[in-house]
Amino acid sequence: MVRSVKRLVVLGSTGSIGRQTLEVIASFPDRFQVIGLAAGENATLLAKQVAQFGPRFVCCRKLPPGDYQALSLEEMAAHPEADIVVIATPGRSGLGPTLAAAEAGKRIALANKESLVMAGEIITTAAEKSGASIIPVDSEHSAIWQCLEGERSAPQRFILTASGGPFRGYTPSRLAGVTPQQALAHPSWRMGRKVTIDSATLMNKGLEVIEAHWLFNMAYDNISVLIHPQSIIHSLVEFADGAVKAQLSHPDMRLPIQYALAYPERLANAALPLLNWDELTHLDFEPPDLAAFPCLKLAVQAGRKGGTYPAVLSGAGEAAVELFLTGRIGFTDIAATVAGALEEHESSSQPTIAEITAAEAWARQQVLQMAPGGSRC
Amino acid sequence: MVRSVKRLVVLGSTGSIGRQTLEVIASFPDRFQVIGLAAGENATLLAKQVAQFGPRFVCCRKLPPGDYQALSLEEMAAHPEADIVVIATPGRSGLGPTLAAAEAGKRIALANKESLVMAGEIITTAAEKSGASIIPVDSEHSAIWQCLEGERSAPQRFILTASGGPFRGYTPSRLAGVTPQQALAHPSWRMGRKVTIDSATLMNKGLEVIEAHWLFNMAYDNISVLIHPQSIIHSLVEFADGAVKAQLSHPDMRLPIQYALAYPERLANAALPLLNWDELTHLDFEPPDLAAFPCLKLAVQAGRKGGTYPAVLSGAGEAAVELFLTGRIGFTDIAATVAGALEEHESSSQPTIAEITAAEAWARQQVLQMAPGGSRC
Repeated sequence: MVRSVKRLVVLGSTGSIGRQTLEVIASFPDRFQVIGLAAGENATLLAKQVAQFGPRFVCCRKLPPGDYQALSLEEMAAHPEADIVVIATPGRSGLGPTLAAAEAGKRIALANKESLVMAGEIITTAAEKSGASIIPVDSEHSAIWQCLEGERSAPQRFILTASGGPFRGYTPSRLAGVTPQQALAHPSWRMGRKVTIDSATLMNKGLEVIEAHWLFNMAYDNISVLIHPQSIIHSLVEFADGAVKAQLSHPDMRLPIQYALAYPERLANAALPLLNWDELTHLDFEPPDLAAFPCLKLAVQAGRKGGTYPAVLSGAGEAAVELFLTGRIGFTDIAATVAGALEEHESSSQPTIAEITAAEAWARQQVLQMAPGGSRC
Repeated sequence: MVRSVKRLVVLGSTGSIGRQTLEVIASFPDRFQVIGLAAGENATLLAKQVAQFGPRFVCCRKLPPGDYQALSLEEMAAHPEADIVVIATPGRSGLGPTLAAAEAGKRIALANKESLVMAGEIITTAAEKSGASIIPVDSEHSAIWQCLEGERSAPQRFILTASGGPFRGYTPSRLAGVTPQQALAHPSWRMGRKVTIDSATLMNKGLEVIEAHWLFNMAYDNISVLIHPQSIIHSLVEFADGAVKAQLSHPDMRLPIQYALAYPERLANAALPLLNWDELTHLDFEPPDLAAFPCLKLAVQAGRKGGTYPAVLSGAGEAAVELFLTGRIGFTDIAATVAGALEEHESSSQPTIAEITAAEAWARQQVLQMAPGGSRC
């Protein structure tokens, strides 16, 4: 029997990606059915989503009214009735459900970066064993996926594009004075607060390099980053014959979300904007300024070293962004803070999930303790 | 039995594309074997090629020394031992062998534009019936082919890029004074004389629109042309979800040639240059200036009208370029001359090959007769 309606669980449904995912799903009621929703803090919005989509499973600290079964994130991610698991939960909370979905052989539409950054080897090994497919929702990795589609020969290089964020071209001294408000004003993408700050520091691009390494089994030496302020080309793939393929679109996350849900099909969706070549007169490129944006280098180094270093990078990065957003450290202190945590850390090799989560927690704790004003934990 | 070496015939082996094809073939002696060569005028170079590649079949008005069998273009294109037929013969002489190869179910690496322009419906119908595949060698159509590879949903728009040629930005009055020598100095591609002049008038891009229509069964309304002076993006394909894919490379015809020969594989070839993103700071785009370059519009109109109009376009265009190169008409007279022939023509609908070739010959004759100094035929 061909089942035409795919049953989805959406973890992190009240965040930026989660809301856009539900927007896409609502456009195709004959193709997608929401059977599970999970949210963190925003119980009000979750209640509205539950009323609109009528999921059979819900996960939230404050459960909204409705006729459903309460499940944990992991139970929902591995539920036998789920065809596609959208993982849009932020930060370390994505790790558990991503691993559960990978072990359960699901199609995973993965918007959470930290799970692959922290435990790329464990998750991709589990997915390979179970037959799970991890389809990236990040625009850069979705672009690479699209460029690889149908290619029979292995790619030889990825070029991840980066907008450069709001502070492109700033000197380190000018960067030292930027405020959280300035950092939250991203020039091209609408995203959550954490990833917006990570975009401003280029930490986000470093995390994406690690993700690309695991998603596509590409050596770090063959992953480059290129600043492309217009955010039209979402990434490029170079092949053995020197041909390069690129995927382009307006910067709108609904496109990679829809692609991950509908893959291998492409669905017509009038809500998605088309590129207008009458207005697009040029696309610009420049190398990233690693002196002004050291987080990119730090991240790639942590990825290369492997073990629990990427978990420390992730935990320290999250804590440092929190300190910056609450005015306790400056913008340029973010990199220094993360670098400090990485230096102090002693990594395990071939770490277990427990060791990875412990390293991540240690790094967060460490950063919050070192910060001016002491720990809030 | 898997046969690893593909047996090739190369028609038009002494022209620009033919020579570059043999260059690619020579790099992969374990994959490609030349069994046939055909050339028009350059018997000296053909003799060298025959000595180097030792083909079993040769076609030329002046046959060089060697131990081979002389065949016609059509016999070679349809020869049972040929796995791939490279059609790089210029102008109308490509029509016969392309049709023969299409009827014989060959893989055709097609560099000749005029065959599809003149007889697109007949050739594509023959190919469909026989199971022949027509893999384009033109960089634009190769780019589209590469972007479509693996896609399960129909594309909704092609955007063919054009360098704009050496006279991009010229006003019509400035264009009136340009010389053949100026027109032959193409800014990005090394090509034969006819196609170089056609690039300068944008006639070439119009012919490519017609080709794209037939190769990919795309409506004319959904094929756009975009000027892109750097010739790095070779074309773009827009899909139903708004995603756009592009193929990029240095402007070097050896890449699309190699792709057409090795498809679906991509072969590592150190002779092919890689894009250097340290140097590529921007890619520019602008709409084509149809007032200054009316040949583009003329060609698309002839394609839309169909019948024998594209054959007249092709024949009149060839004759007009000849008149320009021999100093008998000015650059801006090319379009006026072609327009005149199209206006005088009465098209057959659903024309036969005989009607098509008659229309093409009529148009050439007509243009040469009308020219200052009278006909040379």
